[in-house]
Amino acid sequence: MDKLRRPVKQMDIRAKMTVDELVKEMGGAAFGAGRLAEALDVYEAMLRDDTTKFFGLAGAMVPAGMRKIIIDLIADGYIDVLVTTGANLVHDLIEVWGGHHYRGTSVADDIELRRQQINRIFDVFLPEGHFSTFEKKLLDVFAAIDAKDMSIRELLTEIGHRVGADSIIGVAARKNVPIFCPAIADSVIGLQAWLHTQTHKLNVDTFKDLHEFMDICYNANRTGALFVGGGVPKNFILQSMIVTPKGGFDYAIQLTMDRPETGGLSGATLDEAKSWGKVGEEARAVTVYADATITLPILVAAVRERLERK
Amino acid sequence: MDKLRRPVKQMDIRAKMTVDELVKEMGGAAFGAGRLAEALDVYEAMLRDDTTKFFGLAGAMVPAGMRKIIIDLIADGYIDVLVTTGANLVHDLIEVWGGHHYRGTSVADDIELRRQQINRIFDVFLPEGHFSTFEKKLLDVFAAIDAKDMSIRELLTEIGHRVGADSIIGVAARKNVPIFCPAIADSVIGLQAWLHTQTHKLNVDTFKDLHEFMDICYNANRTGALFVGGGVPKNFILQSMIVTPKGGFDYAIQLTMDRPETGGLSGATLDEAKSWGKVGEEARAVTVYADATITLPILVAAVRERLERK
Amino acid sequence: MDKLRRPVKQMDIRAKMTVDELVKEMGGAAFGAGRLAEALDVYEAMLRDDTTKFFGLAGAMVPAGMRKIIIDLIADGYIDVLVTTGANLVHDLIEVWGGHHYRGTSVADDIELRRQQINRIFDVFLPEGHFSTFEKKLLDVFAAIDAKDMSIRELLTEIGHRVGADSIIGVAARKNVPIFCPAIADSVIGLQAWLHTQTHKLNVDTFKDLHEFMDICYNANRTGALFVGGGVPKNFILQSMIVTPKGGFDYAIQLTMDRPETGGLSGATLDEAKSWGKVGEEARAVTVYADATITLPILVAAVRERLERK
Amino acid sequence: MDKLRRPVKQMDIRAKMTVDELVKEMGGAAFGAGRLAEALDVYEAMLRDDTTKFFGLAGAMVPAGMRKIIIDLIADGYIDVLVTTGANLVHDLIEVWGGHHYRGTSVADDIELRRQQINRIFDVFLPEGHFSTFEKKLLDVFAAIDAKDMSIRELLTEIGHRVGADSIIGVAARKNVPIFCPAIADSVIGLQAWLHTQTHKLNVDTFKDLHEFMDICYNANRTGALFVGGGVPKNFILQSMIVTPKGGFDYAIQLTMDRPETGGLSGATLDEAKSWGKVGEEARAVTVYADATITLPILVAAVRERLERK
Repeated sequence: MDKLRRPVKQMDIRAKMTVDELVKEMGGAAFGAGRLAEALDVYEAMLRDDTTKFFGLAGAMVPAGMRKIIIDLIADGYIDVLVTTGANLVHDLIEVWGGHHYRGTSVADDIELRRQQINRIFDVFLPEGHFSTFEKKLLDVFAAIDAKDMSIRELLTEIGHRVGADSIIGVAARKNVPIFCPAIADSVIGLQAWLHTQTHKLNVDTFKDLHEFMDICYNANRTGALFVGGGVPKNFILQSMIVTPKGGFDYAIQLTMDRPETGGLSGATLDEAKSWGKVGEEARAVTVYADATITLPILVAAVRERLERK
Repeated sequence: MDKLRRPVKQMDIRAKMTVDELVKEMGGAAFGAGRLAEALDVYEAMLRDDTTKFFGLAGAMVPAGMRKIIIDLIADGYIDVLVTTGANLVHDLIEVWGGHHYRGTSVADDIELRRQQINRIFDVFLPEGHFSTFEKKLLDVFAAIDAKDMSIRELLTEIGHRVGADSIIGVAARKNVPIFCPAIADSVIGLQAWLHTQTHKLNVDTFKDLHEFMDICYNANRTGALFVGGGVPKNFILQSMIVTPKGGFDYAIQLTMDRPETGGLSGATLDEAKSWGKVGEEARAVTVYADATITLPILVAAVRERLERK
Repeated sequence: MDKLRRPVKQMDIRAKMTVDELVKEMGGAAFGAGRLAEALDVYEAMLRDDTTKFFGLAGAMVPAGMRKIIIDLIADGYIDVLVTTGANLVHDLIEVWGGHHYRGTSVADDIELRRQQINRIFDVFLPEGHFSTFEKKLLDVFAAIDAKDMSIRELLTEIGHRVGADSIIGVAARKNVPIFCPAIADSVIGLQAWLHTQTHKLNVDTFKDLHEFMDICYNANRTGALFVGGGVPKNFILQSMIVTPKGGFDYAIQLTMDRPETGGLSGATLDEAKSWGKVGEEARAVTVYADATITLPILVAAVRERLERK
Repeated sequence: MDKLRRPVKQMDIRAKMTVDELVKEMGGAAFGAGRLAEALDVYEAMLRDDTTKFFGLAGAMVPAGMRKIIIDLIADGYIDVLVTTGANLVHDLIEVWGGHHYRGTSVADDIELRRQQINRIFDVFLPEGHFSTFEKKLLDVFAAIDAKDMSIRELLTEIGHRVGADSIIGVAARKNVPIFCPAIADSVIGLQAWLHTQTHKLNVDTFKDLHEFMDICYNANRTGALFVGGGVPKNFILQSMIVTPKGGFDYAIQLTMDRPETGGLSGATLDEAKSWGKVGEEARAVTVYADATITLPILVAAVRERLERK
């Protein structure tokens, strides 16, 4: 019977497997393992195809240790358009300006941390003093920027050219990879802009980004998106397809722990996105329900292995 | 021993209990029931106190049937400041302009839905045709608005005065309850603004809202926040306390299915927020891990019962 | 169009609503609220029909404060067959023998608790001393029981007749409601049996229960099941239908936070159960994804209100 | 400051990394990645130490493709005691007797599947006909076994000696690795035992296993446990420590998607287990919140790489 064509192949796990060899074994299996293997196949196809590659980055991925992965993906041409949260950019800037995140614990006394001026992000600790440096540096950058009308993307490029290339925001500026951050006011960058604009001008238009973003979508040949978490980055990338005549993304991968049953966009399935035309009817689309700090490094290691092979 | 002061009281559930009577029984219990009862106590105290009341509304709560609850809370003075997503405002406008959401099913054939021009939001169906009406009406509103520099909040108030009071955006305008929506570009309102600004001017500044929002925070006496879901609304409300000298929210309630372990802000505990000074050391703060479409109506019914009583 | 027949009715929440009035308002809504309202309709229909009523009770529901709800459901004829975990029975016996559970906190220092001999169950504290009483009492009961071959159900009935009627196990014995607990060895009852059988005989057969349980299934007219959590109780109830000619349960309600994507039986959908014939093709079946300590009291309060009405 | 000793090291992901090299990079990171790296360190230490190694296997891991991993772990001495569910043993026997599981889809029409006699386990399909073979074979085995009093473990060993070594149950019998399955009646093995015992004798005692299991615990020097999922296997392994004078497990690793907030044992933290004395005060214990079909293969590949190295 047609439904019984592909027997589950029990995984064979040995010492010294490469990451791609591991994921290949998962390819015969089901549940999360099977989905991760499928995600890798989709990712490889998306990267080999003539695809405009969108990357949606939500969650506290920079504090968690995923910053260099993103930097390298941009540097090596795996990302054409980055959409992210203010928080990831804030923490990126904190590190490029000399700060560090620290391995802490999730079972902490938060009031004691407060008194020691340590901010907690699950099991990551961040000295509050880093924000003083951040504030000073960012206000300097704001002061140096021409206050002419600009989009959020343009503001981020301006910042990017004023920080080292060993940062997401810096490498993106140098590689002409646009960073979109629709909710930038919802971050410590926004709070500094508030301070700055009490005495200076800084004209950043809320909707201006959409012209550039929609142009990218219109001019794309094939389109693919990798979503780490949901939130604004996921929705902003997907909604573009409602008004473009593309018929939806051709490739879509979602790495998330969010669940569909609450009805929120973050946990929505990529099938649901097909009903809106955000993901194409014929698209290759897969969601992996597991911690993205585990699945993203696997995908990246394995796809690099595959692409390097030929 | 001090740790063994409060025995669990087994819930006594009878016919014809009022919602507050039900939650009172939960007050002797543990796990989610105990937390919901505690949330009600915090909500009551927050409403009786001289509190500036923030409401963070994420998730697809309007399609799910929570719209009238929010309208009534605004109308009756339970909300002083609303922070929400573009999606909730879009769906609010769809209904005030004559559209409807429909009870569908989450196990649908999304490609068939696509062909029938029905958009799915988990188990809610929305005819795509509603967006044509939405587009026409919103472009009319944009055309009627003076294109002078404004904030997102001001834009929403302008829209609010042009729609019926039987909507979130309409009642908020009439009751002078500001609506903040930092990620408004990430919504169909944003997409219409993109269309509009291809031929017209509309100057909405990204950071201007922060001045008004921070003024509200500075001028507040006591502060309380009810969060339905996480996302931008939660972070935007909480981050204000980093730069105000208040020492954090005095009351905070979070209704969510998100979990802390992924490290994202949506699932972060309110204890974690204390390490940042976003929630006060002495604050009354509680998270209820359950579907907000169930817990919010319970909280609202029960707190109305309590407040009406005296 | 057929898919657009039932508009979402925005919930109208007022003071002094009864629980059934609240759930009725949820009946016009979607997501969890809509499912809870549907679950109530199914529960009411199942109770009014000529149904053999199975109740699957997993999770630490007794420590959480749901014990009296279960006792009253048995006393009032809402449960014909109870399948549960050893843990729920252990905690039931702890209370009937004078012990208490206590409201604690989930952010505790567990090593300090260990030193104070306090056992933690999420935010419930249990003095370890209660287990000494439990041990003594249970060994007395074991000593009084005739060591003839018996099933687990028969052992539990023997215990039930030797404890007060103000317990799950006691009321079930008096009302002739059989309690099945296939994994009883996996509990402190099992550990006491281990102690007892070092010096005494106690012959409890692993498979004997199945004869009685399958007879109940064969003799049932219509069948319904309410599952609180998943685990062994859910599977044990459902698997019976694989070998009975009934074609699956006629009614099924599942209250759980578990998710389908991990592939485990606890989170499996009731649709999946239809592929096995465990739930009938025409069955009324609904899953509510929310904390059962919140949803079970709601269902019970509302269904009692409905049944009392006529 | 002591809390700020260990900076997050941003992961460096390259092509052709081995699995252990990947996890080592995760070792500098936080959230799930950091926990997985810590789990690997604990697993390595546990395997190198003079440890009695318990393995708790819940969830539908055999249908998902993890069967050979378990077989090889037993064959190579990585597991001393296996505690599992009836379902995993049933699906193991289905495969050793010539059946297969198939890759299907989780968005299936379950009523159509029912009519085609295909059972669904999330995205795995199983032809119902396999159960006819299973039934015939198992009844033959039951008929061949001496009906003397035995424990569940002894029954499973009897079965194991009658099936091929290319199965969990077969290899365990040959390697003298005891399999405990307290809830065996809650499985299709139980249903066959019900059929068999309608006409034959089969005396399997519910509590007899505990003597052997507790002896293993008493005689152990150091103890370690790896839990895949929760359920009965997790509780059964942990509860042994309540009555042994060991002071709890020395090593514990938990791979799960369950969450603590519902209060159930499956999602309970290993810290909570310390308050009971189930996990030792000084134990190395870590929980990884991610799909076990992804994390278990990673752990196994990486630990094999490490152990082979020296």
